[in-house]
Formats: sequence, C-alpha cells, structure tokens
Amino acid sequence: MFRLRQFRAYSTLAPTIRDVFLNPLPINSEITCYGHIKSIRSFKKLTFVDISDGSSHRSLNVVMDNNSAESASNFAVGQSVEVKGKWVESRGTQANEVRIVSDDPKHGVTILGQVPDSYPIQKKTLTLQFLRGHPTLRHRTSTLASVMRLRSKIETELATFFQKNSCVKVGPPLLTASDCEGGGQQFIVGQGNRPKEEFFSKAAYLTVSAQLHLEVLSQSLNRVWCLSPCFRAEDSNTNRHLCEFWMLEGELSYVTKIEQLTSFVEDMIRNVAQSLKTDNQENDAGLFKDLEQSRYSKEDRQKLTERWDTMLSREKWPSVTYTEAINLINLHKYNSKETLRWGDDILTEHEKWLAGDHFKSPVFVTDYPKAQKPFYMPNLSTEIYDAEKPTVACFDLIFPEIGELVGGSLREHNYDLLVKEMKERGMNIEAMDWYVSTRENGSIPHGGFGLGFERFVAYLGGIDNIKDVSAFPRAPGILAC
Amino acid sequence: MFRLRQFRAYSTLAPTIRDVFLNPLPINSEITCYGHIKSIRSFKKLTFVDISDGSSHRSLNVVMDNNSAESASNFAVGQSVEVKGKWVESRGTQANEVRIVSDDPKHGVTILGQVPDSYPIQKKTLTLQFLRGHPTLRHRTSTLASVMRLRSKIETELATFFQKNSCVKVGPPLLTASDCEGGGQQFIVGQGNRPKEEFFSKAAYLTVSAQLHLEVLSQSLNRVWCLSPCFRAEDSNTNRHLCEFWMLEGELSYVTKIEQLTSFVEDMIRNVAQSLKTDNQENDAGLFKDLEQSRYSKEDRQKLTERWDTMLSREKWPSVTYTEAINLINLHKYNSKETLRWGDDILTEHEKWLAGDHFKSPVFVTDYPKAQKPFYMPNLSTEIYDAEKPTVACFDLIFPEIGELVGGSLREHNYDLLVKEMKERGMNIEAMDWYVSTRENGSIPHGGFGLGFERFVAYLGGIDNIKDVSAFPRAPGILAC
Repeated sequence: MFRLRQFRAYSTLAPTIRDVFLNPLPINSEITCYGHIKSIRSFKKLTFVDISDGSSHRSLNVVMDNNSAESASNFAVGQSVEVKGKWVESRGTQANEVRIVSDDPKHGVTILGQVPDSYPIQKKTLTLQFLRGHPTLRHRTSTLASVMRLRSKIETELATFFQKNSCVKVGPPLLTASDCEGGGQQFIVGQGNRPKEEFFSKAAYLTVSAQLHLEVLSQSLNRVWCLSPCFRAEDSNTNRHLCEFWMLEGELSYVTKIEQLTSFVEDMIRNVAQSLKTDNQENDAGLFKDLEQSRYSKEDRQKLTERWDTMLSREKWPSVTYTEAINLINLHKYNSKETLRWGDDILTEHEKWLAGDHFKSPVFVTDYPKAQKPFYMPNLSTEIYDAEKPTVACFDLIFPEIGELVGGSLREHNYDLLVKEMKERGMNIEAMDWYVSTRENGSIPHGGFGLGFERFVAYLGGIDNIKDVSAFPRAPGILAC
Repeated sequence: MFRLRQFRAYSTLAPTIRDVFLNPLPINSEITCYGHIKSIRSFKKLTFVDISDGSSHRSLNVVMDNNSAESASNFAVGQSVEVKGKWVESRGTQANEVRIVSDDPKHGVTILGQVPDSYPIQKKTLTLQFLRGHPTLRHRTSTLASVMRLRSKIETELATFFQKNSCVKVGPPLLTASDCEGGGQQFIVGQGNRPKEEFFSKAAYLTVSAQLHLEVLSQSLNRVWCLSPCFRAEDSNTNRHLCEFWMLEGELSYVTKIEQLTSFVEDMIRNVAQSLKTDNQENDAGLFKDLEQSRYSKEDRQKLTERWDTMLSREKWPSVTYTEAINLINLHKYNSKETLRWGDDILTEHEKWLAGDHFKSPVFVTDYPKAQKPFYMPNLSTEIYDAEKPTVACFDLIFPEIGELVGGSLREHNYDLLVKEMKERGMNIEAMDWYVSTRENGSIPHGGFGLGFERFVAYLGGIDNIKDVSAFPRAPGILAC
C-alpha cells in the first residue's frame, strides 16, 4: 500500500533582496538570502561581499571576519551563493548588513554555482555594446537589470491605466492572412516543406500591426487595447529598429476628434511616468531612483533626469498641425529659407529639432497630408479645408532626442468613403472584406493609436539602442539564442 | 502667417455604459451615451430601447414616448446610436434609465451606423458554434463580451500578483533558432522567396515555449514571468487546441523543492479567482456576477458557480505522486483491476476522473516517470528513490472537467548532469550552447511552470471550446480575418 500525502505542508520561497529591503526583519534576526557575488573587498580582519539578485538596484552587504570557515580567496565575482547570517545595523553607507558570526556553525556563505576565470560580468564599467556580445549574462549588470524592471513596471502601470479607463485588453492574432498597411515587409509562415498555402488553406503572415483586428473588436467592446508582438522583415539594422518588437495599440469608439486621442495618449504617458517616479515600493526610492542608481556615470544620470523632467514638468504638451510644423521649421530652423515644401516628409532630424530644440517638450503634430498616410484615415481637418492640400485626421507624437513615438488617427467609418479610397489606391477589397464589413453593421466613429513599446522603454530608461531594451533582440542576421 | 494652437483644449471621451453605472450622474442630469441597440419594445404610448456597448454586462434602458420626433419603426437591433436624454429613476428592474423628453429639442436617439436586414446578432439565444461563423460580430453578444472582459481582468490581476511577488515581467522572443522540447511541430519563418536561412543567417522558427529563454533571464533577475504567444503547428482541431495561443510562464530562482512551485501556482490561481469574484468595480457585481448575468440558461449559470466553488472552497488542493495516482486509478476507477501499469501515461480521461470524481478539486500530480518528461527535469524524487522506476521533480496541475492546466518542474542546474542527459537523448548540445552555458556561470537551482492562458480563461469563464476565448482563433484550415 501507499501513503497518500494529500495535504502538503505550505512552503514559501526564500525572500528576494528586494523583499529584504521592503519588509526588513527585526535587527539581530537570523537571515538566509541568495544572489550572485558582485564584489569582494578583503581587509586585514574583515571581508565584505556584496551580493545582488536582480530584484532591486540594491546589493546586500555581507560582512565576515577572516576567522570564518570561509576563506575570502574562495570567492569570485559571479558565483551564486547562499548566505546565512544575522541582520544587523551597518557602520557603512547602507542602514543594514548581514553579519556572518564566525563561531556560529549555522552561519556561512555557501557557493551554489561556480564561475570560470573568463566570467565577463566583472565589477567595472562595461559598455552596452560589449554586453550585447554576452546575451545570456548581460542582465546581471545593474543597468540592464534596471531596464528590465522598468519595462515590467511600465506594463503593470499601463494595465492599471487602461482598466481605469474602461478599456478591455485583448490578444489580437499574430498569424494573419492580411497585410495591414499594404507595405509588404512581412514575414511568411510555413510548416516543414509543405506548400505555404497548405496548413491554413491560405498563406499566413506575421502581423505588422494589430490595428485592423483591434478596430473590429472595438466595434463590439467600445474600448480595447493590446500590448503584443509585431514583426517587420525590414533589412535595416539601426538603433531604432527591431524585426520583432512589442507594440502598444489602442482603439477607442465614439471618438470624433483628434484632440480626444491626443489627450488620451498624453494622459496615458504622463500617468505611467508620474506613478513610476513617485512609486514608493522600493522604500524611499521610486523606480526612477532605481534607474538612476544603476547608472555608472554622472552624464547618464543627468540625461535620465532631463528626460523625465521634459516629460513631466510642463502642464500640457503643445500641438501643431503639419502645416504649422513645416512653417516653423522653415522659419526658425532654416532662418526663413523655405527648405521644406508643403507635402514633403518631416524627417527625423526635423522632428528632433521641433521637439528638442524648439518646444523642448513632447509635441503632437496633427493633420498630415493625405498622400503620406494609409487608406483608413478620414479626410477631416481641424483647419479650414483646402482642396489642393488635402489632409487627414491623424497625429504623430514627437519626443526630443528620438522623434516619433506614437502615431494615431481617426478611422474612416463610412462604408462608401472607405471603399472609394481603397479603390483609388488599387487595394484588393475582397481580401479585406472582413474589415470593411464592420462599416456595414452598426458602424461606429472611432480612432486609435500605436506606440512602439521598446522605444518608449528606451526613452524612459535613458537607453539609446532599443536592442538593450529587448531581452533577446532580433534584427537582420541577429538571432542569438 | 499662421496661428499657433500651442495649447489644446482638454477634451474627454464620452462615458462608457460601464462608467455610467460605476459613477452615476445625479438624478435628472442631462446624459449623452452611445452603444448598439440590443432590443426594442414598443407599446401604445412608450417605446423601450436597450443599448449596450460591450463595456459591461449591463444595458442602458432608454425610454421615449411615441410623440418623440423618432419613430420606433426607424430602429433596428444592431444599429449604433447616440442617445441624449435625462438620467431618471426607473419604474423597471434597473434603478435608472434614460428618458427622452419629447418636447426637449436637445433630446433624441440618433442613428450613427445602419444595419442590413441580415444582421445576425439578434435578440435570441445564439449558439457559440453559430457565432464562430461571424468572427467580426460575435463579441457583440453578452456571453462573448463577458469572456473578453474576464480575459482582460485575469491578466491585470496576474500582473498584480506577480509584481507583489517580486517577479519581473519579461518579453521573451517569439522568433527563435531553437526547438524548446525537441518535439518538432514548429512553424518556420521566411521572407519572400529568399532561402530560409538568408534573413537571419540561420533558420528561424516560431517559439513553442518561452521556458529556455525565461530560465536564462531568471538567472539574472531572480524571478521572471511572461504572458506571450506560442505556436504549435499541430494538425489537430479540437476544443482544447489552437495553433496560436498565449502561455503564462514563470521561472523562479533559488527553488529546490517541487512544493515551492506548487504552492506558488496554487496561490496564483486562487488569488486571481478570489479577487475577481469579490471585485467590486461593477457596483455590487464582481466579475463573476458579470459572467453569470451574461449567461442565458440556468444550466450555464450553475456550471459557472460549480467551477468557481470547486476552485475556491477547499482550503488546500490535494497533491499525489504519479505512483500514488496510478494506484488510486486502479484501485477506485477500475475496482482493483490493474489497468494502468507503472510507466503508462495518465490519459485525459484518468485526469478528469482523478480531479472531477475522486478528489472533486484541482489536484497536483508530482514525480512522473523520467521517460515521460523532457531532458531538463532533474532526477530528484520526493519519494524513496527507486532505481528501477526513476522519476523527475515535476508536477501537473489537473482540473475537473478539463484535465491538465499547468505543468512545471525543477530544472537541472548542474552542468554535468544536464549535458549527460542531453547526450543520452542524442540532442545537439552545440546548438543549445547558449542555454547550457548558464550552468557554468554562477548556476542557480531553479524551477518554473507554464499555463495555457486560453484554457485557464475558458475554465473560469465556463466555456467549453477555447476557440471562443481567443479573439481570432487559428487552427489547421482556420485563418479567418
């Protein structure tokens, strides 16, 4: 026969270093904690070992006298260890530390995992470029660990914001038969060596944007959003591009004005940044503090502060139309030499000037020329309509240093106008029948937007290359791990 | 010259029907709201129109006398409308309603979007199977809208749970060069007609599980989790399978016992379900109430109640080993006829009997035979070790009615033992070098788990087919929209 262990003893996880600081034990308690050795300093009588586990920007300081069973010479940076000691008041910069009492047989530092001599994450400033060459170890640095924590918290704050605003989070499909904006550059998906149409009875692609599917869902659920992966098979390898990235997209029903969308987006970004800055979870340090303390140089810390101030200090972000923006750029950037003509693209360098130099603030640019934008944007203008310079009801949100961060628009909800535009652009309406059909079945005026999530995290994290914000970045020729 | 509209007027969105009930206006206020017409009842003097917008299980009752400018005969189920009226106390079952005052010129119901006579979402019970044939309109039913809201809130609650437990949410890659469990059945990704190795310099697949990448990240960040899409190119078309689904996966460091994982998973599921049940966001109705009220039949409501009770009423879920489970099944299900031998698979029918009939509770089954499980599970046992019946430190969480919902295990963190096992299984260690290398660089004892998100939502939502939980399901031959 056998014994039935029907009810398990309740067991818990060991506390993380974040937990140790968030819910500190009473002084002189026995403590067990875990992490990687970050640094070792040996003196005549004492050895100090800092351990860190990626849960917080803080390290745990472990102090042992050199009579302990452990010899400091056994320790190496990068080893994973178990520490058993006493939680005491510190004489150093931190309030508390763990003391290994040499004559207590329960106390000690046990090595759980060894490191080779070549272990690359040493206690010195490592460039982000160097770290990209170590994709499985680079998140052990305080900078990249703080960026991962930032990314995680931004997501939680976004979920809270959207829930408060009655938006339903949905999971749009990644496998799709459609090409959202007719731009090509999609990956195609197959199975084994079978013909590509066989598995799904038609060719399947990886989505470049969830927008069209979100529009369908917003017509039933009022307000929807998603944060989900998108793919672009672009042959460009820059600081700003990934082949696989996460996109935050929202679609809101019963919206008839661009200002409703820009207000919502501004609210969203401000709310997230403000709550991260003032978040008190890490004792006296909000997430901004976490980020700041993970930076090695004064310049990096300064840059972070400036970015957050730029975003949060102004009461309301400015908004100009495309036409106004073109005029501003010609007037001020080019000293009245008309370098940009109406209809020209506003390039990234212009965007950076507009937001960074001129407004010194995130800025909305609205009402772009129709010819620059996709088929679904309605021919509505917030300005006096000019038949020779037709514009559409859309916006880009432009940030200092990086340029466009969010793009959005109203969506044409009138069946006849939508189909007319698609025909003029030579699109295959039959293949898009499912999308167009929403305009025949209780159609709703609506609008939405998309934000490249890695770009947003990079901006808030003070990181220049979005490859450092993606856990395992994918780009042409780059598919490590 | 041009006028610079630097500061926009602050505009807000119209309230959703959820907002109207959550933050009701004072009686006799003027109200504007929006939705689709759900039903129309016309009497001699009055016409009642119910409108719904998918933000809540509730409909807004609009009452107009038949002297209004609107003729009831203009209205049809499915039209999208704008309603302007007065927020008054109701004589019906709801506390409040919107009254259109016939001599108030501002009042009225304006049709925003027409419907054809063939509009399929009529006021009658529609089967979920019928609705699958209308993928762009099916979420206008209260049942499927409530399932989408459930899915959304589960995700928010999960994020809260993981954040409280110091877990970092990460975005593992979907494009991968690896095949996680060596099981094949992966989709392959290409670009245009180029050879499949060209774009990334190697063949790229869609991930079947984020586990290996999460393990890498957990070795730096202590505790990580993700909720992200996975893909399986299986040729099966059942109630339980999708080719594209979302998987919740977690990896926890410094874990050495299966009980630490099962406790965590039980906590997670209980916490989410409990907070959804008692959530007070929808006035007096938690999300469970929302779900319940969206069901047409008494049987469906009963089923929901039973599922939630089964999950929440017991203080602690039982746990048995594989060996104990086999014995129980032989002893009770087959009346001591030994139908299952040690080493046999526990089939879904056995799982349903064990959880549904025998324990009447979710139940953990641990310590499965090594031969049934993947290479990374360590050869540790919670029972006395039997060299002839080797088991691994793993668990499945089995639910009544559906069988396995979660699977997890400790992960072998010893380099030599891991490589030995991989060699014995004939695996290509060089291709997995990035994964194996974590065991050489400060390796940490750890474990994790995976939960099929659609299956979980379907169980909590009282839905039998996971195609009704996925917004746009993908399966062999199924790629609508």
